[in-house]
Amino acid sequence: MINDFKIKKLLIIGLGLMGGSLARAAKERGFANHISAYGHRDLSLKKGLKLGIIDSYSTELAVALDGVDVVLIATPTLVANAMLEQILLLTDESVVITDAASVKGSFVAAGRACAGLGGKLPGNVVPGHPIAGSERSGVAAADGELFANHRVILTPVTETNIEATRLVTAMWEAAGAEVVTMGVEEHDAILSATSHLPHMLAYALVDALAGREASLDIFKYAAGGFRDFTRIASSDPVMWRDIALANRDQLLVSIDQFDEYLTLLRNAIERSDGEMLEEIFVRAKQSRDVFSGQLLKRDS
Amino acid sequence: MINDFKIKKLLIIGLGLMGGSLARAAKERGFANHISAYGHRDLSLKKGLKLGIIDSYSTELAVALDGVDVVLIATPTLVANAMLEQILLLTDESVVITDAASVKGSFVAAGRACAGLGGKLPGNVVPGHPIAGSERSGVAAADGELFANHRVILTPVTETNIEATRLVTAMWEAAGAEVVTMGVEEHDAILSATSHLPHMLAYALVDALAGREASLDIFKYAAGGFRDFTRIASSDPVMWRDIALANRDQLLVSIDQFDEYLTLLRNAIERSDGEMLEEIFVRAKQSRDVFSGQLLKRDS
Repeated sequence: MINDFKIKKLLIIGLGLMGGSLARAAKERGFANHISAYGHRDLSLKKGLKLGIIDSYSTELAVALDGVDVVLIATPTLVANAMLEQILLLTDESVVITDAASVKGSFVAAGRACAGLGGKLPGNVVPGHPIAGSERSGVAAADGELFANHRVILTPVTETNIEATRLVTAMWEAAGAEVVTMGVEEHDAILSATSHLPHMLAYALVDALAGREASLDIFKYAAGGFRDFTRIASSDPVMWRDIALANRDQLLVSIDQFDEYLTLLRNAIERSDGEMLEEIFVRAKQSRDVFSGQLLKRDS
Repeated sequence: MINDFKIKKLLIIGLGLMGGSLARAAKERGFANHISAYGHRDLSLKKGLKLGIIDSYSTELAVALDGVDVVLIATPTLVANAMLEQILLLTDESVVITDAASVKGSFVAAGRACAGLGGKLPGNVVPGHPIAGSERSGVAAADGELFANHRVILTPVTETNIEATRLVTAMWEAAGAEVVTMGVEEHDAILSATSHLPHMLAYALVDALAGREASLDIFKYAAGGFRDFTRIASSDPVMWRDIALANRDQLLVSIDQFDEYLTLLRNAIERSDGEMLEEIFVRAKQSRDVFSGQLLKRDS
């Protein structure tokens, strides 16, 4: 972490949980002289100002970008792709642009598709994804420690300036995060398995149960395990619609692979194959136990 | 709750998390004069004695049953079915027998199938299932407050004595639980959906992810949502093998129903149907949010 790291003017595009939390971290840890926000909804921006998370805001993008040296796009995935195009039209390469969207392939593709760029992502754009979150959303849930001891994945591409990547790395480290870099495809494949797939399963499970007759009774006898398992089904529907659409191909691979494993398990139950069931459960428990220490260490 | 409720000698068959926790509750709340345990493993029984959870133990069933007025069978599901048969051979109808197994149909069937009973479950047997637990197991994890403010479902059948049901109800209420009764089939259908199915999904998910190449990297970038979602995959494999085998038919119905919903969701992703995805996610979030208050109230 660079101790004297300082951003002159940080602009947050979309002041929700993620953007609000980075703004709050910048305030609390003092790594930005001025924190500004842009958004369509006056309400979130006013709330951010009232909470003291931001210093100023604008609902006009050209005004919001004035004098800015770092921009974080922290909107839902598909909006982020559209915002990138608008921001690139209004800035030059002196402004470092990064994002917090959960899917990186579609973000890079959107940047490369902008008119006049010749199919190249400008070098000042550093695609990123903080692996942190909550089923809560909105600026009121902003938490200055949301990123502390969490990983932020950056996926710089061949076009990306090394200096821009360094600056974004320093920003996330200043917020307390551990920064790692990897390829765009690797990111989208891993996240489709560890994050996007579990969300789809939780949504499908709750929807299936709610669809059963007497669903009220069904939920009434659910225990703590069910509560934990379905917590992520309380996540923001629009955000997850966008993620599912943006990471379509990788997510389909992960769902289909999961379905093969579920079918194996289902068929073992059907033929009352206790040996195979125990083998699967032991193997899964071992994997979960090995990694749970790692998970707990990071998220505690 | 009957304030002066007292068991003379309570026998716990299988001193694990559930049995140990009822023993501890009986100790702490003082509703049994003497608490004894039976099991195959000397180690758990000795530990229970050392922890002061039980007053005595035996590894010989006939010895353990001497002078007992209430027996709780708290072994994994399939062992419970076998234990019931052995206990019925050694006792008369003055001893009230109940259990904590997660599947009630197979337990009732095992009792009715005992030689010399003419296909009837003895009136002193009260099938039961405390909706409480943990991914931890073993007597060391025993918690006297495990059942407090949790539901215990009793599934008395037509043969069951009303007095025996009253006594078992009083015992669980003395441990702090809320007792409800329902039919055997209703219990097994509900639990297959809210408990057994989520466990199968968590096991299948962790197994699928561990099966991918570079699974270490996959788990490394998992976040809090994944940790919560897969916590139940750390549950005891033998216990869950037994549950899957014992509740086979209802579990297959629940898995197949879930798979239909997952396929709907998968196909919406494949054809990039954002409208349908949002509809599913909103519906699931609403169901989850309505019931999360209820769940939190009970489990906090």
